[in-house]
Amino acid sequence: MSTPAPGPAARTPLLVRAARGEDVERTPVWFMRQAGRSLPEYKVARGSTAMLEACRTPELVAEITLQPVRRYGVDAAVLYSDIVVPLHAAGVDVDIVPGTGPVMGAPVRTAADVDALAALPPADLGFLAEAVRLTRAELGDVPLLGFAGAPFTLASYLVEGGPSRDHAATKAMMHADPGLFAALLSAVADITARFLRVQVDAGAAAVQLFDSWAGALSRRDYDRHVAPHSARVLAQVTDVPRIHFGTGTQDLLPSLARAGADVVGVDAHLGLDEALDRLEAAGTPRAVQGNLDPALLLAPWPVVAEHATAVLHAGLRAPGHVFNLGHGVIPATDPDQLARLVDLVQGFDRAAGAAAAGAAGAAGALPR
Amino acid sequence: MSTPAPGPAARTPLLVRAARGEDVERTPVWFMRQAGRSLPEYKVARGSTAMLEACRTPELVAEITLQPVRRYGVDAAVLYSDIVVPLHAAGVDVDIVPGTGPVMGAPVRTAADVDALAALPPADLGFLAEAVRLTRAELGDVPLLGFAGAPFTLASYLVEGGPSRDHAATKAMMHADPGLFAALLSAVADITARFLRVQVDAGAAAVQLFDSWAGALSRRDYDRHVAPHSARVLAQVTDVPRIHFGTGTQDLLPSLARAGADVVGVDAHLGLDEALDRLEAAGTPRAVQGNLDPALLLAPWPVVAEHATAVLHAGLRAPGHVFNLGHGVIPATDPDQLARLVDLVQGFDRAAGAAAAGAAGAAGALPR
Repeated sequence: MSTPAPGPAARTPLLVRAARGEDVERTPVWFMRQAGRSLPEYKVARGSTAMLEACRTPELVAEITLQPVRRYGVDAAVLYSDIVVPLHAAGVDVDIVPGTGPVMGAPVRTAADVDALAALPPADLGFLAEAVRLTRAELGDVPLLGFAGAPFTLASYLVEGGPSRDHAATKAMMHADPGLFAALLSAVADITARFLRVQVDAGAAAVQLFDSWAGALSRRDYDRHVAPHSARVLAQVTDVPRIHFGTGTQDLLPSLARAGADVVGVDAHLGLDEALDRLEAAGTPRAVQGNLDPALLLAPWPVVAEHATAVLHAGLRAPGHVFNLGHGVIPATDPDQLARLVDLVQGFDRAAGAAAAGAAGAAGALPR
Repeated sequence: MSTPAPGPAARTPLLVRAARGEDVERTPVWFMRQAGRSLPEYKVARGSTAMLEACRTPELVAEITLQPVRRYGVDAAVLYSDIVVPLHAAGVDVDIVPGTGPVMGAPVRTAADVDALAALPPADLGFLAEAVRLTRAELGDVPLLGFAGAPFTLASYLVEGGPSRDHAATKAMMHADPGLFAALLSAVADITARFLRVQVDAGAAAVQLFDSWAGALSRRDYDRHVAPHSARVLAQVTDVPRIHFGTGTQDLLPSLARAGADVVGVDAHLGLDEALDRLEAAGTPRAVQGNLDPALLLAPWPVVAEHATAVLHAGLRAPGHVFNLGHGVIPATDPDQLARLVDLVQGFDRAAGAAAAGAAGAAGALPR
């Protein structure tokens, strides 16, 4: 069996190498929700275009996706989209209501509802492929991250009919009719996997699966009722590094890893060192992404710098570390704080940090 | 030193004995938010009275507090109130907006704001003492639980100006100015501790401290910035059993215990068996309360029964177990489901369950 010769190392994006656990000269950085509401140029570009329409307009998607790369010099672009875009493209009656979030025309509750969802013909995702191509053409060496919402999170919107704090109807369906729930997640997995696959085929260098609401579940329920469907999605894109993320997942990190992640996204509920401990203890060591609390960006810069530096030091012993926030950028964030943060991360001397850790011996001597 | 002779065991309420880890003939049960929106008789009693006005009207508080005791025969009443009532009574400009929650006239952000809060004279809580007395007079042997919001949760409402998903301004203050944050939590702790103390002095048999949002914090931040203030509140009511609860606290259970709890409230993120494991492993074994996922009550009765039975079995090895939901009753809950659940819990044969566990040996042989 012949192995194709790898290209020159410099051509493989830093973020991809970090995600694969290869040696890197510095820690790559990008931010969840880096494109969008916190940027004044976004408001100008978007104007009065409705969110879902904006997501279906390739030129606008490319412009908005590129904005944070231009402004911050982050190490990856992430496609401007929304987790309900594949549902909308498939014909589901959904709108994104400003100030509320995704709202369904009718909730999905019955077997007939699920059957109707499963019977939808494959969506025309030409707009998505075109958006990826347009963006890639402008990005140069900066990699583009594709993304999609995970089956449970999308199912929660479908079953609840909109955003929910308690996901009560969704959990009730999960326990009352596990077969129906599995059929629903399976249908959603097909839709969202195709959404990811199109992005990779068009040139996305890595992907992130967002399971925003997975943290609402116990580990037992997640492993039994949800993980198999997320695993099926992630199995469709094994040719690129896969980042798997959710909030409130401090007990789910090994489960996220086992579902097929190359990189486990960590939110701010745990120190990154604790997250690494948990992944190792569970026999699922992985590269990690995270995990500065986005709330900290509302604090003065020295506070941000102190905590970000601690995250960078904690990441040194990870199999790979992609710096990010623990959740999306908060709309009220001052873009200048993010610019300084990118400079700090990109200027962090990993070799010196590792040497200091070696000299200090005990981890307690390092900032945490 | 002379020890007062204990009264006859039958006179100490079941819930108090379970909370103290004493032997009980059956598992006591009550539900967070058992009084209120899920009950039709509540809507009749409350009518068009505004929430905060209702909470200040002793006769109405007593009536609403008694309703679930009459309907379900639960083993405790919990005072109908709201965690912002002590702030309102102290003169803070707060309202409870239907469909939104507590909304402040102005957020608390500066040292001057915190000083003004700390300088408020003690509130007149005569309405509260009267409500407790009126309720107690009707309750007979059923104990009344007092409650209050914990300092962090109340501080989040004050700093954010209302309900918040990310608690960003609160966390930013915590990290940017820990001294100011401590002063804020200290002022809130004084207000809320007094609210609890008045309830106990008027006859509450136990109390619950609700730290609804504590789960938004990492364990390190909770322990450093929040726990000391909750501990100060709980230290004011050591003469009755203290239940300490928050949601999303799977990593905080030992911290909740150390803050001074006799009973640790457990939400549905963990199996009750896992929660007990964590408390034991941390050297903080405690009686526990919980933890049926309230979403399950929207499922058909056999599903509720199966999961509730598993919770009851898991609770047998606890130092003490008070059955409850993992969070408050969801407004859409059918009261008949709760009635059946009370019957199931009160009919559960602890001795037979324990014998079965002994015979089965491995825990895996029991429903989980």
